[in-house]
Amino acid sequence: MTASPVASLPLTAIAKATRQAARQLAVLPTEARNQAVEAIAQALEAATPEILAANAADCQAAQAEGIAKPLYNRLKLDETKLKAAIEGVRDVGKLADPVGTVQIQRELDEGLILKRITCPVGVLGIIFEARPDALIQITSLAIKSGNGVILKGGKEAIRSCETLVKAIHQGLSTTAVDAAAVQLLTTREEIRALLQLDEYVDLIIPRGSNEFVRYVQENTRIPVLGHADGICHLYIDRAAELQKAVEITVDAKTQYPAVCNAIETLLVHSAIAPTFLPLAAAALQKRNVELRGDEVTCQILEMAAATEEDWSTEYNDLVLSIKVVDSLEEAIAHINTYGSRHTDAIVTEDPNIADTFLNQVDSANVFHNCSTRFADGFRYGFGAEVGISTQKMPPRGPVGLEGLITYKYKVTGNGHIVAPYAGKDAKPFTHRDF
Amino acid sequence: MTASPVASLPLTAIAKATRQAARQLAVLPTEARNQAVEAIAQALEAATPEILAANAADCQAAQAEGIAKPLYNRLKLDETKLKAAIEGVRDVGKLADPVGTVQIQRELDEGLILKRITCPVGVLGIIFEARPDALIQITSLAIKSGNGVILKGGKEAIRSCETLVKAIHQGLSTTAVDAAAVQLLTTREEIRALLQLDEYVDLIIPRGSNEFVRYVQENTRIPVLGHADGICHLYIDRAAELQKAVEITVDAKTQYPAVCNAIETLLVHSAIAPTFLPLAAAALQKRNVELRGDEVTCQILEMAAATEEDWSTEYNDLVLSIKVVDSLEEAIAHINTYGSRHTDAIVTEDPNIADTFLNQVDSANVFHNCSTRFADGFRYGFGAEVGISTQKMPPRGPVGLEGLITYKYKVTGNGHIVAPYAGKDAKPFTHRDF
Repeated sequence: MTASPVASLPLTAIAKATRQAARQLAVLPTEARNQAVEAIAQALEAATPEILAANAADCQAAQAEGIAKPLYNRLKLDETKLKAAIEGVRDVGKLADPVGTVQIQRELDEGLILKRITCPVGVLGIIFEARPDALIQITSLAIKSGNGVILKGGKEAIRSCETLVKAIHQGLSTTAVDAAAVQLLTTREEIRALLQLDEYVDLIIPRGSNEFVRYVQENTRIPVLGHADGICHLYIDRAAELQKAVEITVDAKTQYPAVCNAIETLLVHSAIAPTFLPLAAAALQKRNVELRGDEVTCQILEMAAATEEDWSTEYNDLVLSIKVVDSLEEAIAHINTYGSRHTDAIVTEDPNIADTFLNQVDSANVFHNCSTRFADGFRYGFGAEVGISTQKMPPRGPVGLEGLITYKYKVTGNGHIVAPYAGKDAKPFTHRDF
Repeated sequence: MTASPVASLPLTAIAKATRQAARQLAVLPTEARNQAVEAIAQALEAATPEILAANAADCQAAQAEGIAKPLYNRLKLDETKLKAAIEGVRDVGKLADPVGTVQIQRELDEGLILKRITCPVGVLGIIFEARPDALIQITSLAIKSGNGVILKGGKEAIRSCETLVKAIHQGLSTTAVDAAAVQLLTTREEIRALLQLDEYVDLIIPRGSNEFVRYVQENTRIPVLGHADGICHLYIDRAAELQKAVEITVDAKTQYPAVCNAIETLLVHSAIAPTFLPLAAAALQKRNVELRGDEVTCQILEMAAATEEDWSTEYNDLVLSIKVVDSLEEAIAHINTYGSRHTDAIVTEDPNIADTFLNQVDSANVFHNCSTRFADGFRYGFGAEVGISTQKMPPRGPVGLEGLITYKYKVTGNGHIVAPYAGKDAKPFTHRDF
């Protein structure tokens, strides 16, 4: 069955169909899911001319409407970018199967066996902005992990998304995976409706601005895997090696300032501030970084004054706020107050101070003597990244396929009932792992 | 520092103090947390006369207000129940430390080491009804797992809760754990305020009616570990051994009908319904179970007719709805439609049919040839149960200490920056686990 790429059914019917297809997909063996991922790669290759034409039409329309340059760059899908995305699909195919892992295997009593086994979450709702390559990546991750997916792309990418999903459906039609497992929504009004479908959708993954992610979190009972904001800090301890500290500072701020794991605030111990700050400032200004300092910083170096607002601002740009602190405790307290629990790092040669920092800073990623920019699923070796979560509960930090997986408890007995294990003279359990 | 047992500060100040104390608690070694758990046990022993007197006063007041019998039974804390609860505290002390487990240890590149390590969630908000023994259990689990806890008990238990928390604070005052890590709220208005404190509270655990849990889920941005409703099913396949099927049916319905893992609906394959139903009905009626059947069931045996509403009703009582189905698929579809994803079981001697059932039924616990009543953290060998979650995402099913734990990623380098690992000629990562 090849579903229509443009959803023409009411949303509930679409969601039901996805749920149904996802139930079949969930129990397919590894090989069948890998074949489906490969079929998607081949179908995208075969449809390359159509995809590029559709994207060119999207780009033309977007330009006519005066789209902003960064959004245009994300929308644009040239042959190189498409090839890389298709390569990414094949990489997903090569990842270890996250489904069917036995996490617990335990005899509760003779003949009564408990197993905890990983399984797909069910149906994912993905809401993303312009980027058509995000559609390709998330669809391959969904199929790999045995999940159905309802996709909602930005309206500026509508022709690209429709053409991509048409190709994906064609690819899946030759496999054991029902094409209805992948659905595309095309109207903005459907977002609100999608967020209400907690009966059919098990996890929402919003990809977009911080405001959008927050909107989603506040308007649904479905669990949300949030790619939240990153107010990351780098703390230069009094026991820091200065050259190392300067290099890490420059990398963490300038290597890619628009992303969530770049730093926004530099904290410097007062004992080394007079020597470190001029070195750091010179290196940062060479990279055109605008500096904003607290009072003490401004006494050491002339720069714009940071206001209270700066400490909780994610610039996503070549701007850095700087604060001088008198102790490790003050640095940790500042981070735990103003940070977003994403990634925070310390530079120090004192291992005890490093330990205290890593233990007490309340963030998903805590780093010692390296750049915050390493906080990333690919760099961590997860193969693919679903997103970075700044929630406290797992999955936390960079989330790979693990975020699309849950588990169930299977218990097999031979007529076992609870009565003999309850009350006085209750039969004990053996609880023997094997 | 001994905090006042009755919160006299504004809620935000209380939450801040809890957060502060929890930060210190989180980094204490295993031994210090175990000592604190033991100190709680001893303090409760020492305060036994006061606790029993306070509870007697609560019970008296509750009776004067005409409290319902089941609620009264949960409120009543006699010496035996208190002793058992204190024993439970010591059992929690003996559990393996859930904090500090290294889940991933990986070289990203030479000298750049990633570790994923378990750590406490932070501050728990626990809202419970009458049961004062729940306060004892959850407090010991919180301290064991390195979490601060803000407790809100039912107003009918206020004297008991205040006396218990006073004893707990006295116990903690002799240990490394700041007593401010355990706080008690006493007014109903504080529940709504607590649910707004997402800056200070990391996880809400509501213990109470289904309606209350739903109210909490819909009125907070804080993650909720939900003890949801249980509409559990037992499916008797055509290949079932009848005696086994009857025994499991009786146990699953009557061994403790008021709990969430008791069955509400019995599904029976049409091929065996005429022989099985009379046997099952006789055994169930001996236990005073009221039966409600669908049309086919009522043709086989005389009983009240089940309505559409019955299929989605959690009776929590000696009532059972019965439906005859023509296939495994129909049974699975019924469960996935009307069930609450808690626990569902099949009785069959056919291993393939059992496999299909366990794979396709979309519940946290799926059982073969045993009673649904085994779905329980203690029976699974988790030592202590925080609750049963029917959410799809982990933690799912019976949740032990694992539900009070998260993890963080620690990366240690020696001046490593991202620049050499990016762009053309990017340095590869080694991603070597050890």
